[in-house]
Amino acid sequence: MQNTTETSGFAGRWVSYREDIKVLDCTIRDGGLMNDSHFDDKTVKSVYNACVEAGIDYMEVGYKASKKVFARDRYGAWRFSDEADLRRVLGDNPSNLKISVMADAEKTDYHTDILPKSESVIDLVRVACYIHQIPIALDMVKDATDKGYETCINLMSVSNVQERELDCALELVTQCDAKAIYLVDSFGALYSEQIDYLVNKYLHYARATGKEVGLHMHNNLQLGFANTIQGIISGANYLDATFAGLGRGAGNCPMELLLRFLHNPKYNVRPVLKSIQEAIEPMREKLGWGFSVPYMLTGFLNRHPRSAIKWNASEEKDDLVAFYDKIIVEEEA
Amino acid sequence: MQNTTETSGFAGRWVSYREDIKVLDCTIRDGGLMNDSHFDDKTVKSVYNACVEAGIDYMEVGYKASKKVFARDRYGAWRFSDEADLRRVLGDNPSNLKISVMADAEKTDYHTDILPKSESVIDLVRVACYIHQIPIALDMVKDATDKGYETCINLMSVSNVQERELDCALELVTQCDAKAIYLVDSFGALYSEQIDYLVNKYLHYARATGKEVGLHMHNNLQLGFANTIQGIISGANYLDATFAGLGRGAGNCPMELLLRFLHNPKYNVRPVLKSIQEAIEPMREKLGWGFSVPYMLTGFLNRHPRSAIKWNASEEKDDLVAFYDKIIVEEEA
Repeated sequence: MQNTTETSGFAGRWVSYREDIKVLDCTIRDGGLMNDSHFDDKTVKSVYNACVEAGIDYMEVGYKASKKVFARDRYGAWRFSDEADLRRVLGDNPSNLKISVMADAEKTDYHTDILPKSESVIDLVRVACYIHQIPIALDMVKDATDKGYETCINLMSVSNVQERELDCALELVTQCDAKAIYLVDSFGALYSEQIDYLVNKYLHYARATGKEVGLHMHNNLQLGFANTIQGIISGANYLDATFAGLGRGAGNCPMELLLRFLHNPKYNVRPVLKSIQEAIEPMREKLGWGFSVPYMLTGFLNRHPRSAIKWNASEEKDDLVAFYDKIIVEEEA
Repeated sequence: MQNTTETSGFAGRWVSYREDIKVLDCTIRDGGLMNDSHFDDKTVKSVYNACVEAGIDYMEVGYKASKKVFARDRYGAWRFSDEADLRRVLGDNPSNLKISVMADAEKTDYHTDILPKSESVIDLVRVACYIHQIPIALDMVKDATDKGYETCINLMSVSNVQERELDCALELVTQCDAKAIYLVDSFGALYSEQIDYLVNKYLHYARATGKEVGLHMHNNLQLGFANTIQGIISGANYLDATFAGLGRGAGNCPMELLLRFLHNPKYNVRPVLKSIQEAIEPMREKLGWGFSVPYMLTGFLNRHPRSAIKWNASEEKDDLVAFYDKIIVEEEA
């Protein structure tokens, strides 16, 4: 699977590796959805140091959220990723690790809040949008490109997009300057055959314009890592993962599994384990991410996990049958 | 995927279902490896009732272990599955659920401990063996068949078997009376492309003699459910799963995920959730099954999880880097 050009046959598929693959850590960015981005500097520094030592390609440190939409006194620094906050923790980033931020369409004052590249430690601006926000997303990509950044587009909630509209969206977004178009399984609702079908569709449009396809998977059905493997087999080269799977709801593809699987000698999982042990696992009880039955149910129903997140934070959290009845029988909206 | 004969095209693959599939619950049997089979009657009864109500095809209640090898005062009743113990909890099993026991080669006094079918509530004897035990396994299958039981063979630790010997083994075991030959990923070390390759190999031999292929997956790499899906796609029809994934080490394919995935209207996940909530989850802290980094490391190394089980039960359990150094750097035998 991993190196179809230089090896052949079954064993070559994992005994070798595929050099084109890039790994993007989004522990702090996606995990920030579980704590309003309130990570202390020590935690962010631990993940940053681990990413550098592990040979990871990109680290997404947070969002570039609008201060008009998100109150500064409610959200932590990593929701806004101001330059001063980045430099306080990353310095001038004297490493090969590239720094990413996520810019959500309609939630980012990109004209003013994204500085010219020459004034920023950021390397990559990832624009996240729903299908109805593509014109804004394309303007955001142009703005960031003009300012000197690499860009990607994360088209969210694709499992709820009609296929004829997805084709239209992919034709549009592959005309812009983004390096990669991400297949995003926001609800953790897809399984391998769907991933294969969609990655092939994305590649059809992306390859025609010299772009790559990326993967951002969630673990609602315990398929976050498996779907990432399937996407690699199908040809995706940009891979999102997080330390210990930290992320919204059931979490993401775990970085420790992905790095070991990839077999590229430039990656080293030991620093990731050290950071998981020292900085990530101590947050588990409070943040409560990871697979659970309520997340499974929203995943199978192809719904946003918000009702399960709320349930898991309530005193009824262990009453799995009550949540089942609520969401399946009562058909919660 | 799930009904290739009656539907076609992408959507038909999961929108429909495959009637030939049989689901086997092995919660108590495999989970017994984490507590020396010391389940109280209430727990076993909870799982049994849930299996009946959920429409599950088989429930494996325990091992038929030799009392010469396993001390009665150390192991619980479900290690031996004596008829009196079975009937105390299951009665005469007045249901459509079939009862299974596992008989390990060289660890079972099968001539004496397996009664004639007419005297037993058991329906299926699953013979488990390593490749060097096939002659014994075949004799055990003959013994159980002659006594009136359905039989299956679970060929364990296949990820450490040389391919030319596996071919020889499959040619031999598909000559016996077993209904299904199981692909068993004992170390949770395989990923989708390997599952596909092996299921196709097993099917090549099994189909020639009218047998089915089964799957028994472990979750060391968070692939227990994903590999079961891959095996279904590849053609396996007998599927092992456990409530909340309870099982040795990282555990097994979770029943709640599998039943929802299968889409067969005869299955109902609600009773399974009820039993998980009432009987299974309350054991988690003590039994400690489920994915963790030490299990991941033994999985990637294609090794028995015993060193990780020991680590996770020790006071050092949270020191992931120490386990990494022990197993990767020091190359523990």
